[in-house]
Amino acid sequence: MRSPLTLGKSRIEALSDGVFAIAMTLLVLKLEVPEVMHHSSNEAMLQQLLAMGPAFATYVVTFLIAGGFWFLQHLTYHFVRHTTGVFIWITLLFLMLVALLPFSAGLMGHLLIHPVSQLFYFANQLAIALLLNAQWLYARRKGLLDADDPDQIERLTFRIAGTAAVFAACLIIAAFLPFWSWTPIPVFLAAAAIVEARK
Amino acid sequence: MRSPLTLGKSRIEALSDGVFAIAMTLLVLKLEVPEVMHHSSNEAMLQQLLAMGPAFATYVVTFLIAGGFWFLQHLTYHFVRHTTGVFIWITLLFLMLVALLPFSAGLMGHLLIHPVSQLFYFANQLAIALLLNAQWLYARRKGLLDADDPDQIERLTFRIAGTAAVFAACLIIAAFLPFWSWTPIPVFLAAAAIVEARK
Amino acid sequence: MRSPLTLGKSRIEALSDGVFAIAMTLLVLKLEVPEVMHHSSNEAMLQQLLAMGPAFATYVVTFLIAGGFWFLQHLTYHFVRHTTGVFIWITLLFLMLVALLPFSAGLMGHLLIHPVSQLFYFANQLAIALLLNAQWLYARRKGLLDADDPDQIERLTFRIAGTAAVFAACLIIAAFLPFWSWTPIPVFLAAAAIVEARK
Amino acid sequence: MRSPLTLGKSRIEALSDGVFAIAMTLLVLKLEVPEVMHHSSNEAMLQQLLAMGPAFATYVVTFLIAGGFWFLQHLTYHFVRHTTGVFIWITLLFLMLVALLPFSAGLMGHLLIHPVSQLFYFANQLAIALLLNAQWLYARRKGLLDADDPDQIERLTFRIAGTAAVFAACLIIAAFLPFWSWTPIPVFLAAAAIVEARK
Repeated sequence: MRSPLTLGKSRIEALSDGVFAIAMTLLVLKLEVPEVMHHSSNEAMLQQLLAMGPAFATYVVTFLIAGGFWFLQHLTYHFVRHTTGVFIWITLLFLMLVALLPFSAGLMGHLLIHPVSQLFYFANQLAIALLLNAQWLYARRKGLLDADDPDQIERLTFRIAGTAAVFAACLIIAAFLPFWSWTPIPVFLAAAAIVEARK
Repeated sequence: MRSPLTLGKSRIEALSDGVFAIAMTLLVLKLEVPEVMHHSSNEAMLQQLLAMGPAFATYVVTFLIAGGFWFLQHLTYHFVRHTTGVFIWITLLFLMLVALLPFSAGLMGHLLIHPVSQLFYFANQLAIALLLNAQWLYARRKGLLDADDPDQIERLTFRIAGTAAVFAACLIIAAFLPFWSWTPIPVFLAAAAIVEARK
Repeated sequence: MRSPLTLGKSRIEALSDGVFAIAMTLLVLKLEVPEVMHHSSNEAMLQQLLAMGPAFATYVVTFLIAGGFWFLQHLTYHFVRHTTGVFIWITLLFLMLVALLPFSAGLMGHLLIHPVSQLFYFANQLAIALLLNAQWLYARRKGLLDADDPDQIERLTFRIAGTAAVFAACLIIAAFLPFWSWTPIPVFLAAAAIVEARK
Repeated sequence: MRSPLTLGKSRIEALSDGVFAIAMTLLVLKLEVPEVMHHSSNEAMLQQLLAMGPAFATYVVTFLIAGGFWFLQHLTYHFVRHTTGVFIWITLLFLMLVALLPFSAGLMGHLLIHPVSQLFYFANQLAIALLLNAQWLYARRKGLLDADDPDQIERLTFRIAGTAAVFAACLIIAAFLPFWSWTPIPVFLAAAAIVEARK
């Protein structure tokens, strides 16, 4: 059996940065400029902007979640020395789900508290988190990592697994209490901050 | 006659990564958020999402096919030492057909089993595959490759040629049996996996 | 407490270049091709293009302002040796506001002289400028900069702070005299040119 | 007077590749999937695709012209050692006009032979070509070039100037004979090929 081809990581990083940049920027296309007239009063126009509240909230939250996934992927690639075909295909599946975010966010911005839009949205986030874990596990098992900082690698393993756990929790809560589905995210961030500060 | 200008490959790689990232992410714009009301029942909303099945399937399949073309182009450039004007122009024609994918996918997602949308879709894929072969042949003939791994170069030649053959087969089947036009793709992937495992 | 992870700057630069490139290019989607007929006279068609004047002006001004922010971010990163998690998160917030520009520009192009669209537009620009200052202050305090050119670093500090001051002035004027809200921008550019020429 | 800041060229190249990739890929959004029914006959559907002929032709021609401008900018940057603030601002103006191409192409694809759409389209191309010349002249005068290949630099000067001349010719012909406005492009390409072959 031939030895597998060893590939650099610069191109898959460039494709990832491109897909993330576009998916994050396309979110803004879900914010439609309100149809107002030139003679609209300031009050009427402000009301229209305020009515876009759920869409703005979805934009901000989705952009920051996507930024978080980009940051975690950036961290995993920081430790990866080189890539292989399988590793790149896991990343392509990961990017396919990242590129779906503008659709999930559009559904959510349209119907913020509806159970179906929440389930779709958090299932998308959970699938992204699971593929990030799959990619990280694969890289660790196949020895693709620079192993000279085991402490940081351990820490990243917990952060990635924790992210998947959080979105699984959001998904479960969304099925029963859609209004409270967001709560695991700030709880996790606060807990992570406390753990970090203690060390 | 002057010696032709030798150019680096980083910029055409960056342009390629950009065009692929955008074409792959624009596919999601073909998934329109269903027009549902706040008081729609869960069943009504799930039905609308299920009605989007062909559009979702086209999204997934086209994203993965595009990812496959990106991967093959990544592999060809892996062996290329430097580029020339002609080589860059072949890549630009290749990218022109990649950028057409959101249109082909839109046609397909709209009318999954219609012969005309299938012929258009697979003709687009075949044209991309043929330009990938043209680029690879040009690079081999003009000595642009790093020839220190002839085994891997031979393997890549077969994969690229095989990809063109698969889409030619899809195109022919689409003309007569549109329902079965996808079948050459999994057959080829399975055959390739068996050949790889034997070596 | 563990020492924080030191990260390279190439990937956050690539993400920034991607978000800027897309936000700047999406501005053009706000320019809708006029619905004209094949037999429209030249005069009718020219009139339709002239009626797009405010949209074109907004395109040009927003593209150049965004280009200016990109240039200033490029300059700050020029002096940054490496990044940290906090630094990257400030950049992600900055990019979130950059990605909002096509919406702000759409509002502005639609209703050029309306106070509400002007307040929204300049608040967006001011928020971008403030995050650029926050990022720069953080990098200076945490010693992330290459300190071998204190003169240029001082100059950049003034330029970034001046940009925030200009958009704060635009915002205040927009609340009272929307027609004159743009004036601080050319005044600042002229003043900066005079200061530079004297040195 | 302080010495001006010398900047690298990698970030402005990345921004340029991003703007080109997006502008070129957004062209496809002007190709609308025809509104056909599931039971449409093959003939009806083919007719609808054939009716999109002018839009397809505009897509192909504009993509290739944009690819040509990208290639020429790639060549100019190949010879540039480092950049300055003024040089980057000329590039930003250049990119502002490149990002306008999807609008010009939309106008053209909508009304292929109308004088106003042709004048707008070729004025856009001419402005891009003129800024490319301005950038090149500035780089030569300010000594930003690697001067070790004067022969290639001379050749590139002619190609860039020739491109501007061609689009000026297209613009003039479009004003009088819109049907023949494209002709200078193949004439120039053929003449350039003959000149190249003779050397």
